[in-house]
Amino acid sequence: MDINEQLEIIKRGCDELIVEAEFVEKLKTGRPLRVKAGFDPTAPDLHLGHTVLISKLRQLQDLGHHVIFLIGDFTGLIGDPTGKNATRPPLTREQVADNAKTYQAQVFKILDAGKTEIAFNSTWMDKLSSAEMIKLAAKYNVARMLERDDFGKRYRSGQSIAIHEFLYPLVQGYDSVALKSDLELGGTDQKFNLLVGRELQKDYGQSSQCILTMPLLEGLDGVNKMSKSLGNYVGIAESPEQIFGKLMSISDDLMWRYIELLSFESLATIRKWKQDVETGRNPRDIKVTFAQEIVARFHNPTAAQKALADFEARFKQGEIPEDLVEIPLATGAEPILLYQVLKQAGLTASTSEAMRMIEQGGVRVDGQKVSDKALKLPPGGPYVLQVGKRRFAKVTLS
Amino acid sequence: MDINEQLEIIKRGCDELIVEAEFVEKLKTGRPLRVKAGFDPTAPDLHLGHTVLISKLRQLQDLGHHVIFLIGDFTGLIGDPTGKNATRPPLTREQVADNAKTYQAQVFKILDAGKTEIAFNSTWMDKLSSAEMIKLAAKYNVARMLERDDFGKRYRSGQSIAIHEFLYPLVQGYDSVALKSDLELGGTDQKFNLLVGRELQKDYGQSSQCILTMPLLEGLDGVNKMSKSLGNYVGIAESPEQIFGKLMSISDDLMWRYIELLSFESLATIRKWKQDVETGRNPRDIKVTFAQEIVARFHNPTAAQKALADFEARFKQGEIPEDLVEIPLATGAEPILLYQVLKQAGLTASTSEAMRMIEQGGVRVDGQKVSDKALKLPPGGPYVLQVGKRRFAKVTLS
Repeated sequence: MDINEQLEIIKRGCDELIVEAEFVEKLKTGRPLRVKAGFDPTAPDLHLGHTVLISKLRQLQDLGHHVIFLIGDFTGLIGDPTGKNATRPPLTREQVADNAKTYQAQVFKILDAGKTEIAFNSTWMDKLSSAEMIKLAAKYNVARMLERDDFGKRYRSGQSIAIHEFLYPLVQGYDSVALKSDLELGGTDQKFNLLVGRELQKDYGQSSQCILTMPLLEGLDGVNKMSKSLGNYVGIAESPEQIFGKLMSISDDLMWRYIELLSFESLATIRKWKQDVETGRNPRDIKVTFAQEIVARFHNPTAAQKALADFEARFKQGEIPEDLVEIPLATGAEPILLYQVLKQAGLTASTSEAMRMIEQGGVRVDGQKVSDKALKLPPGGPYVLQVGKRRFAKVTLS
Repeated sequence: MDINEQLEIIKRGCDELIVEAEFVEKLKTGRPLRVKAGFDPTAPDLHLGHTVLISKLRQLQDLGHHVIFLIGDFTGLIGDPTGKNATRPPLTREQVADNAKTYQAQVFKILDAGKTEIAFNSTWMDKLSSAEMIKLAAKYNVARMLERDDFGKRYRSGQSIAIHEFLYPLVQGYDSVALKSDLELGGTDQKFNLLVGRELQKDYGQSSQCILTMPLLEGLDGVNKMSKSLGNYVGIAESPEQIFGKLMSISDDLMWRYIELLSFESLATIRKWKQDVETGRNPRDIKVTFAQEIVARFHNPTAAQKALADFEARFKQGEIPEDLVEIPLATGAEPILLYQVLKQAGLTASTSEAMRMIEQGGVRVDGQKVSDKALKLPPGGPYVLQVGKRRFAKVTLS
């Protein structure tokens, strides 16, 4: 494939590619590039947010590059040596192996198992002596480490930084040396660590890896990053109905963002969809297609068909769906205006649309039509909210 | 021996004992305390400045304590990993072994070889894995490391601190853990590192070592610390005549300082000497006794006797001694007033004494009497300076 086409696919949805000119040179060699992405060895329970990066790895695989799925078990085996973080006890070798299997079962729904190298950094880190660790530490300096956002903030605010925390970015960088990485992927929050790898490779006489940072995916609310604790997530182990229903609930704007970051449809197809919508096509059609792609990926195409059929049957009858997922919204301790809840739950694109829908008699709370625009909902619930015939959400407020 | 007597001997000349109350508890146990002192594995060529600490170790030995002479070969084997310091290439095991032998030949002129344990920290550090190094690093934090004077200054002034430099104090501290040290000795400039050892021992479940810091010995000029590069030193491998002559050249004030830090004469004897001088005894007599003690220590009593006899014969005849040691003085690029040179060379106690001696016709330069108080000496030399009949110095100015 033409280098510019490759580059367009690789850069799709990314936050930064550092340094593009260097990366083009690497692509020009025509050899499969060694692509590294590191993962914690903790028990994985992936949601769509995690799959943004894994989807990018899959795209790189499809372009013929060599993907290395690196499990950072070395640091996991150490745990939290300060003993302050009780949730990070050292893992045993068995736990790491078990977690790795669970990981693989999940990521191989996206990655091509036959083309993926699974690596564990304990392989080389266990062999490193303390003398070699000291030599590694000599390759970076304190001031630059304190330039890392979180370190700088903690230092200035008087929060303790244990010295081993300075060693972890170096270990991650040394992994790039050990793997002879050409490209490392990570979230935007990993940028500093990825750059350390670039520099260490130079120190060890290798050509520096390029880095590709991927954004953090917004959750179903379209505002906060997707996370289990916020409840705004789609777990990849959820049922076809849950995945389908949650994806159908997102706003039209957010839909394009999800498609950019998660769909394997070509950029050309997506451009066509956008044109269609601009010329009058219902974005709901696109949402259905996308939701089906994701359900098929984590289950199978039949399940995707069935989820759609169920969804449509329900909505055509105007019924309240039985299996509405409960969405907890953070609205504070005081009663909150209904139209704000409708917006926050993603049932309307804006508060003004929400107010208009209430005026037009198109809004129900727990089946009761609401006509008072000033209605407030007290904290609690769950409330089943309905906008028009097909938009539903079950929310709790707190 | 009574604990208070021990304490007086141990504290003699020291800068700080931390924490005295804890140390008294250790003494009360009555067991021989494990006393650690660490030394660089670089080629040693000791001068009297180095022997302050070693003399203290000997005192501890004489009190029945167990002295561990620790050679820090682990870091020596690493060298300067930044590669910036060309004068610190990594040493080989053979070089370390050779240097250790040279060390022993010198220090056993002070220490009792039969009672001294020689240890090398590579013994335990080579076995430490990178994971254990990380755990060690977790026990200390960045902010406190930056409280070390030199680190803080370098950080604030934008000078680079390589991260491994934060690991070295931890290695030194871990040595105390490995040796189960009860007391660590070091120069005042080592205080921070010695304190790290105290804390690490606590982390490793040991009772914390006490620390005893010894001051840096002033050189023959009585101003700067004794150092080879300043030329104001007495090397312990120098000839009996050189050692004797240099020690006889020091001021009376400095003599008491040297006696406190270097002599093995009892505190009672020294107190008596001071009384004698106060009641009219010539301090020169004390200086002779002290100089003989030092020559005897590094050579033998016969050599000490001979050095004294030669010295006296020469001075009684008012001759210019033939084997005057050349003392390089840092006086700058411009000509400098003779009376300042006389003070700086230690021939007079003050510039006013020097001026008085010139006025009285008691000063000669290269055998010529000087009567001009404003005489300046241009950089260069050597000049043979004489004050009265017996005070001589050969100096070069630059």
